[in-house]
Amino acid sequence: MWRLHHYPLCPFSRKVRLVMAEKRLELELVLEHPWDQRPAFMTLSPGGQTPVLVNAHDLGQILSDSNAIVEFLEETEPDYQLLPNDPLERAEARRLVGWFDQKFYADVTATLLQEKMYFRLFDRRTPDAGALRQAHKAMREHLAYIGYLVDRRNWLAGANFSLADIAAAAHLSTADYLAGVDWEADEAAKGWYMRIKSRPTFRLMLLDRMAGLPPPPHYDKLDF
Amino acid sequence: MWRLHHYPLCPFSRKVRLVMAEKRLELELVLEHPWDQRPAFMTLSPGGQTPVLVNAHDLGQILSDSNAIVEFLEETEPDYQLLPNDPLERAEARRLVGWFDQKFYADVTATLLQEKMYFRLFDRRTPDAGALRQAHKAMREHLAYIGYLVDRRNWLAGANFSLADIAAAAHLSTADYLAGVDWEADEAAKGWYMRIKSRPTFRLMLLDRMAGLPPPPHYDKLDF
Repeated sequence: MWRLHHYPLCPFSRKVRLVMAEKRLELELVLEHPWDQRPAFMTLSPGGQTPVLVNAHDLGQILSDSNAIVEFLEETEPDYQLLPNDPLERAEARRLVGWFDQKFYADVTATLLQEKMYFRLFDRRTPDAGALRQAHKAMREHLAYIGYLVDRRNWLAGANFSLADIAAAAHLSTADYLAGVDWEADEAAKGWYMRIKSRPTFRLMLLDRMAGLPPPPHYDKLDF
Repeated sequence: MWRLHHYPLCPFSRKVRLVMAEKRLELELVLEHPWDQRPAFMTLSPGGQTPVLVNAHDLGQILSDSNAIVEFLEETEPDYQLLPNDPLERAEARRLVGWFDQKFYADVTATLLQEKMYFRLFDRRTPDAGALRQAHKAMREHLAYIGYLVDRRNWLAGANFSLADIAAAAHLSTADYLAGVDWEADEAAKGWYMRIKSRPTFRLMLLDRMAGLPPPPHYDKLDF
């Protein structure tokens, strides 16, 4: 049994949750707001970032960094494999994980979290309309890239559902919770997300709510 | 034979070069300035970022994203292994790779490249003294963390030299080229970097120069 320190809108925690759900691993969630810098949490993670995964039966087993965690799970829990067998195809899946965790995050998710989550929870200032416009433009470009890929490959990294789809869905679902995705902008990307949304592992996660911050009505609907 | 598209101060390219040197893999370097957006380069890499690794004997084998590349090399070239065998120790090495590639990069390397490389090569504006002060402060904290780790473990992730040391050395050597590291701030971190510098694979890389931008005199000296 594992214990995951997370908060509902953390896209990197979402990635780990989805991996664990796909692998049918039992999981206990611990709500953690990294910005509170809770001392007991800071001792688990030098950077004070979510996600942190702790083995509930062996508290010395502490993992942080979402990439290190999912590679660990892929190595130690080979059932329901999420990386292809072929090394070049694995590299393509990992390239796309990096694309969403770094580029999509920097271009879209980070701005939305800053302007729409921190803003509502802590700040009194007006959201930065210029930053939101730029994130919106980047989101449309990313949707077009997703559409381009799934038109050619079925799933993002190839014929099979993989870690690349999970990373993309983790970021997009956070952005969607913050009303930051314009699904009508790309039909193929929307079709891909519809397939993601119909996975039982994903639907469960969409029921989570961040206190004081409701998602738009379409967020957990299969028909959106 | 592989061909690596890189530029001398790109820390992510340095990481790949060091991995390939440690694994005794033949490599042809192609100088690429991503900011030029050379069309032939843009067709290799959707994000237009270095590093990109191409198989010179099979031009369809194109890898990008430094993490995807080094995991691919670790899987396909198992000699001179750079990740430990134990899954938890592998996770610790990967956590530290993420730490340097993301946190150290954001806190230190990216600012130095912006203010000291782009500035000298393209800009006429004055470097941002506040940003440089902040990077300097962060650099000292990172050195202290390195010192803390090697005091307890010999190398960064454990008993053996690993990908974690390579990622850290890649970023620190870029920062050092830009006169951004105060080695006297931490004796243990300096001792670790001295051991890194004495590896033949690393010394070769330190001879590279960025045109129009000389490093400080101590940069490639074993005694610094």
